[in-house]
Amino acid sequence: MEKKRDFGAESLQKHEKWQGKIEIATRAPVDSSEALSLAYTPGVAAPCLAIQKDPALSYTLTRRHNLCLVVTDGSAVLGLGDIGPEAAMPVMEGKCALFKAFGDVDAFPLCLRTKDVDEIVNTVALLAGSFGGVNLEDISAPRCFAIEKRLKEVCDIPVFHDDQHGTAVVTLAALLNALRVTGKKLATIRIVINGAGAAAVAITKLLLSAGVNHITVCDSRGILYKGRTEGMNASKEELTGLTNQEGLQGGLAEAIKGADVFIGVSAPDCVTTQMVQTMQENAIVFACANPTPEIYPEDAKAGGALVVATGRSDFPNQINNVLAFPGIFRGAFDVRASDINDAMNIAAARAIADLIGDDALSADYIMPRAFDLRVRDAVAKAVAQAARDTGVARI
Amino acid sequence: MEKKRDFGAESLQKHEKWQGKIEIATRAPVDSSEALSLAYTPGVAAPCLAIQKDPALSYTLTRRHNLCLVVTDGSAVLGLGDIGPEAAMPVMEGKCALFKAFGDVDAFPLCLRTKDVDEIVNTVALLAGSFGGVNLEDISAPRCFAIEKRLKEVCDIPVFHDDQHGTAVVTLAALLNALRVTGKKLATIRIVINGAGAAAVAITKLLLSAGVNHITVCDSRGILYKGRTEGMNASKEELTGLTNQEGLQGGLAEAIKGADVFIGVSAPDCVTTQMVQTMQENAIVFACANPTPEIYPEDAKAGGALVVATGRSDFPNQINNVLAFPGIFRGAFDVRASDINDAMNIAAARAIADLIGDDALSADYIMPRAFDLRVRDAVAKAVAQAARDTGVARI
Repeated sequence: MEKKRDFGAESLQKHEKWQGKIEIATRAPVDSSEALSLAYTPGVAAPCLAIQKDPALSYTLTRRHNLCLVVTDGSAVLGLGDIGPEAAMPVMEGKCALFKAFGDVDAFPLCLRTKDVDEIVNTVALLAGSFGGVNLEDISAPRCFAIEKRLKEVCDIPVFHDDQHGTAVVTLAALLNALRVTGKKLATIRIVINGAGAAAVAITKLLLSAGVNHITVCDSRGILYKGRTEGMNASKEELTGLTNQEGLQGGLAEAIKGADVFIGVSAPDCVTTQMVQTMQENAIVFACANPTPEIYPEDAKAGGALVVATGRSDFPNQINNVLAFPGIFRGAFDVRASDINDAMNIAAARAIADLIGDDALSADYIMPRAFDLRVRDAVAKAVAQAARDTGVARI
Repeated sequence: MEKKRDFGAESLQKHEKWQGKIEIATRAPVDSSEALSLAYTPGVAAPCLAIQKDPALSYTLTRRHNLCLVVTDGSAVLGLGDIGPEAAMPVMEGKCALFKAFGDVDAFPLCLRTKDVDEIVNTVALLAGSFGGVNLEDISAPRCFAIEKRLKEVCDIPVFHDDQHGTAVVTLAALLNALRVTGKKLATIRIVINGAGAAAVAITKLLLSAGVNHITVCDSRGILYKGRTEGMNASKEELTGLTNQEGLQGGLAEAIKGADVFIGVSAPDCVTTQMVQTMQENAIVFACANPTPEIYPEDAKAGGALVVATGRSDFPNQINNVLAFPGIFRGAFDVRASDINDAMNIAAARAIADLIGDDALSADYIMPRAFDLRVRDAVAKAVAQAARDTGVARI
């Protein structure tokens, strides 16, 4: 198997050279006495008083309308785990660079020196007046669920957890096009999701919301089912109420047998060619563990899979969050949305999938490339419309 | 008297056009698959792990070394008072624009939805790992004293309150040059400070630290003296122990009689020509209330003042914080200072004053102009040296 280049040494050198991947730029001149009087004192009193009178003007008179808080506690960074706030910053700066380059969204990173749910919620809530939206990043499960839920209740701006919802959107997009290739249908396919962390929970819920009826979820101990007692937590408990209506028990091998779709957000090398051979004809395999997938594409294809996708850019069909979060925030910001809801996420997934026309679509081309310039606007437009349709658009 | 142009209507229009006075810019390319692999996954794991092993590397591998948090609760914004966090943002964005333009410092504004001292301290402490320094802004007294004191204790990065210390630095700089013009000496002059808020407290302490021996402070009720009971608070109480050793009582008129220097950080039009006439010969009058000073320059000169300064750019001798805070943070950041202390502030004041040579110095030219390009580097160099001399430089 090909070992993926890790770019580590070169990246370290580049980071030393860059001295930070983002910086602040000024949009107003402050290069003359008159300019200072307009951008700062005494002129600035006028926009201040205008906002005091009507706080909604904070969206037009400051950068708030385009400003996203990227916030983490450093507890679940990439595959590195709990590396703490300072060490998480290179990822957060990178995320902010992507927000700008791919979404024209101004994103600013904050890494909190706490892992306490109450403190994280309170801190972000106190900052919410300075931003147009919040993207939670690399916060470990199950705390990420509680933090997101409570922030959505207390904040008047959209709160999004990209590790959950961004992943769910691109997975749904890939699934929609894999179904076009294989001729299978959302309502009737049987899906196995391996992994029961933040991404798996969000994928499960979004797929159900999009019209999937049959999902079985496995964790490292095997199938989740009603009544299972070992290795459970609140979110897995919730999943047993939403999935596996047949009450199937056993390991991943039992779960995958007869399935149409395998979605891995789990661990390297946990799926074999033999296991894929037990799936339905024209099987769909999304092996998204990174950098080493659950099964390499050639092995999945050897087992009979027709469509294979991974999280890697060096294989066909990369399932990459960068296709989703920039356009989702762009669309949400464009209509000053108060929330990013399921309808907006599903609209984003459909917009991504629909960019590939019937002529171009193939088993090895179900996802637009990361640098497909059409993606952002298509996603933003669909998300903005869905926000209007669901009543969360404020302009 | 000339009414100062308030720039309000034009500023409001400009703010509508700017749509924010700052934005995020990217410093690392993310325009190709390889670039993404270096700036983001998988390469970014290497700098993350390096920082995890040695948190000090957060200063070289992220923007932290140049990043200042500008934070307020919106409780004492300009002369507007407690206008709240959203309404404070135009001022904070303006401040960040000045930090960048005048100090090449990346500053980011956060306006907190709380005025609770504990919550403000805790929030900033939780964010301290994401910044190289903190500038408190427009937080009302006396809470600003407690917040600054406690943050200095809990943060491993410099904490500066510009309304206090920036104002004190430029006031000391102006005083040093006014003394050169008048031939008076720091150790023997008698100073009256009118106002007992955050700026007055900091000015008093910095002047004492710089070698002044005789200061009398007045608030709106008159002279502060040991044993006064009306209208006192903890910081005024502290001032009675540091000033007015003669135990003088009475109003501003009594205080100003026989003084060499009047420093107003108080209210419009509270000093008359007649009051200035009671001061020593070659009196120095700093009337810094903005936009309407305690006394207009022509009235102070009519009373015999030799050197008059104000906070306004349309009169000679503007005492303007922009001469201080950008260079102070530049110098502190350049040596990764853990604190900004009195020695650094005094060094900044001396550097500002020394920029005006004996040939150029006059009663109407005691302060460099805001756009004097020499100021930043001179201040930064002096501050960095003072940080080294006092053991707070970390590189």
